[in-house]
Amino acid sequence: MPTGEFELIRWIRDRTEERPQVEIGPGDDTAVVRWNSNRCLFTTDSLLEGTCFLLAEAGPHRVGRKAMAVNLSDIAAMAGKPVAAVVSVCLPKEANSDLVQGLYEGMREVADEFETAIVGGDTSVWGGELVISVAMIGQVTGKGPVLRSGARLGDWVCVTGPLGGSIQGKHLDFSPRVHEAQTLHTRVDLTAMIDISDGLASDLNHICEESGCGAVLFSQDIPLTNESLYSPGPLSPVEHGLHDGEDLELLFTVSPEVGRDLIRTQPIQGVTISRIGECVDRGLWLQEEKSRIPLTPKGYVHTLD
Amino acid sequence: MPTGEFELIRWIRDRTEERPQVEIGPGDDTAVVRWNSNRCLFTTDSLLEGTCFLLAEAGPHRVGRKAMAVNLSDIAAMAGKPVAAVVSVCLPKEANSDLVQGLYEGMREVADEFETAIVGGDTSVWGGELVISVAMIGQVTGKGPVLRSGARLGDWVCVTGPLGGSIQGKHLDFSPRVHEAQTLHTRVDLTAMIDISDGLASDLNHICEESGCGAVLFSQDIPLTNESLYSPGPLSPVEHGLHDGEDLELLFTVSPEVGRDLIRTQPIQGVTISRIGECVDRGLWLQEEKSRIPLTPKGYVHTLD
Repeated sequence: MPTGEFELIRWIRDRTEERPQVEIGPGDDTAVVRWNSNRCLFTTDSLLEGTCFLLAEAGPHRVGRKAMAVNLSDIAAMAGKPVAAVVSVCLPKEANSDLVQGLYEGMREVADEFETAIVGGDTSVWGGELVISVAMIGQVTGKGPVLRSGARLGDWVCVTGPLGGSIQGKHLDFSPRVHEAQTLHTRVDLTAMIDISDGLASDLNHICEESGCGAVLFSQDIPLTNESLYSPGPLSPVEHGLHDGEDLELLFTVSPEVGRDLIRTQPIQGVTISRIGECVDRGLWLQEEKSRIPLTPKGYVHTLD
Repeated sequence: MPTGEFELIRWIRDRTEERPQVEIGPGDDTAVVRWNSNRCLFTTDSLLEGTCFLLAEAGPHRVGRKAMAVNLSDIAAMAGKPVAAVVSVCLPKEANSDLVQGLYEGMREVADEFETAIVGGDTSVWGGELVISVAMIGQVTGKGPVLRSGARLGDWVCVTGPLGGSIQGKHLDFSPRVHEAQTLHTRVDLTAMIDISDGLASDLNHICEESGCGAVLFSQDIPLTNESLYSPGPLSPVEHGLHDGEDLELLFTVSPEVGRDLIRTQPIQGVTISRIGECVDRGLWLQEEKSRIPLTPKGYVHTLD
């Protein structure tokens, strides 16, 4: 019986009948669906008051923006191009029109930025708190979707932008890496990709599980945000970089040749690509100076009590 | 400022930028989206504890089934063929694995019946009550999607199956009219179609508004369920048929020639097609014997307090 989010996904997977229209089912950043001459990416992500945001702190505009942006980030992680979204909103009874307008304008802002149409929705008012579910379809681009499952022994592990401390604000205001993923996908062969939502270690672990390999991260090469470097809490800067959720950066693997080229040429304007590790035979490791220690994914996981 | 669901849809519509990929945007049973050589139906519908079901009464299996079936019904209303669904579930903290399993098996049961793949999802645990949001994509079939906007003066108004009293159980156990819609769409030209979710009068009003016409319903021709006929409450049987929500039957319009053919031949096995009215120039009317009285849509409407 499933007791956590990942177990639940596995449990559902095991019970999912094979259907001809399913090219990629549950377990990647989005599904890939095919029928007749059609092919699309399909994903959903929900935000819940008190779990994913505090409405009173964030305000409706940023909450709406985030609800749309996390889905755009999933499409980006497949190297896809977002096409259209539908939105289901559960509004608390005390909701006023400022809340609705703020949510919608936040969603629209980031949807417009990525030329994504909001084509439908379902609004309910209830006794509970705010929930926003967005579902999105996307276009498969160029060489096809980049999956989590293609990493190979010896591949470099790379990441866009610095990591950690997104709870200070980036989890609401991040920029989905749609264009960055397109630039990479067009220019080179990406062997695997994911967006960092659970945390670097945890999401790298997803790539390893799907690809049937291990990975080592080089502690001193992980790019860290100022929020990680100057965090007042008990965790070290690197621990923030490794385990904080919702960086919403791209984590990807490439062959060493491609990796060297990317690091040298830095083809994405305004975003630095860093090599932070390497794919190995098995296990998840952190290399600190000369010692290699086991790395346990600790990223945020929804659990059933 | 929007104060109810329909006002909200209109408000959003007015603010929706035109995008080349939007063939049909918010305001029909589903959207129709197009890009490159792709074209699909796209919709979402959520169920909320206490508003759309009582979990303790209905049980998780029927709740899961309904969450999937209402979306299948929306695809049916466009004369589409369902392809794939994604599911977002907000689980209460006290949820156990029986709940999760029941929900999933209920969803799977009806998804399997209509060869629809469940390709992804998002599960969160929170302090609130159960919410299930399903989003679905569907195939545009044959002559294209049947919209709400094509009814013409003189068209017949028809319906599948008897109406009213679905709260007694049908709102959980209804059969989405996917095959029925396909049979009709293949055989004849449907000028407009909708699934009855808000109530006959209210949903007919949606067709009239989108088509720019009016309609009259013939009181004695509205087929009624036993639940409507033998309801103990203060409403008359016809009032149940007119205003009860969630019949999830197809309400459609056809030319008089087509209507006569359908009524005579009854091409759908096991489901009776009834002619219940006619499109007129303007207004919504109920014809009782020889008097024609104005009909006010009273179907269930979500409102913002």
